[in-house]
Amino acid sequence: MNLEPYVRNIIDFPKKGISYKDITPLLLNPEAMRMAVKLFMQNLPHTNIDKVVGIESRGFFFATLLAEKLNAGFIPVRKPGKLPHRTHTETYDLEYGSDTLEIHEDAIKKGERILLHDDVLATGGTAAAACKLIEKCGGEIVQCNFLVELEFLNGIEKISDYNVSSLIKYS
Amino acid sequence: MNLEPYVRNIIDFPKKGISYKDITPLLLNPEAMRMAVKLFMQNLPHTNIDKVVGIESRGFFFATLLAEKLNAGFIPVRKPGKLPHRTHTETYDLEYGSDTLEIHEDAIKKGERILLHDDVLATGGTAAAACKLIEKCGGEIVQCNFLVELEFLNGIEKISDYNVSSLIKYS
Repeated sequence: MNLEPYVRNIIDFPKKGISYKDITPLLLNPEAMRMAVKLFMQNLPHTNIDKVVGIESRGFFFATLLAEKLNAGFIPVRKPGKLPHRTHTETYDLEYGSDTLEIHEDAIKKGERILLHDDVLATGGTAAAACKLIEKCGGEIVQCNFLVELEFLNGIEKISDYNVSSLIKYS
Repeated sequence: MNLEPYVRNIIDFPKKGISYKDITPLLLNPEAMRMAVKLFMQNLPHTNIDKVVGIESRGFFFATLLAEKLNAGFIPVRKPGKLPHRTHTETYDLEYGSDTLEIHEDAIKKGERILLHDDVLATGGTAAAACKLIEKCGGEIVQCNFLVELEFLNGIEKISDYNVSSLIKYS
């Protein structure tokens, strides 16, 4: 089963010149969802995983499914001001301006083995910031996985210290 | 297994006088997550469900898990400007100001049976708006379910036309 037909190209979204990868058709199809989870699991290193971190908000779609399959906890990395307890914070550069992500300080115990998940790997800034948050908590990153990778943006260079896996690649 | 110990009270968040129900400890515990899914499934009416709608963003945590268990599609209801294709839009009143939610027009086929999920039922404004969006698409709402219900806010009155189920209630 090829997953690519379930990703819809939206031209000029969110702004002119960008071809947005809309994964909602894939989410609508239970077989495609199941296949994606199966492929994510097949591509994981053979090791225990304690927690799955999903990045707000489209990273949440598959992160809880992966946590359930791995019998692992689930941790949301969120935009500023959304997590109510004490947080670590990481600010990173965007094309224009900057963005910030947070994680609960007590979400990870030192040495826990972590899978990071997001829906799309684009420039890699978001994923790299999430990796830093996981390491601030003392977590060890086993893999960063993505449903979609936009290879032409070279985001993988920003997370080259880690094992990276993507299911659908656009070159 | 009682789920209530996995919900953490955060005093004065997001503002003074509010006792926020933090579900992240529950998400960290795979057994509590599994139990929550099991209870959600037990509380469903005995009927087929075609799609599960989750409300951005904390509603996404369990909505994909429920969709997987039900062999149903998953639909995100999102904040304005996030969904890239044609949407239905619903604006609803908050204590101060208003908020808006969107759904992809083509996410639901006429007559499809829909489960609506969110993490917390508070004043009910968000859930009622999501119900209107589902019905604009032609969907039939089988149930609205919530991990947490703040009964003292009477949110259930705003969705009294529907079957409502909550796992953890605060009166």
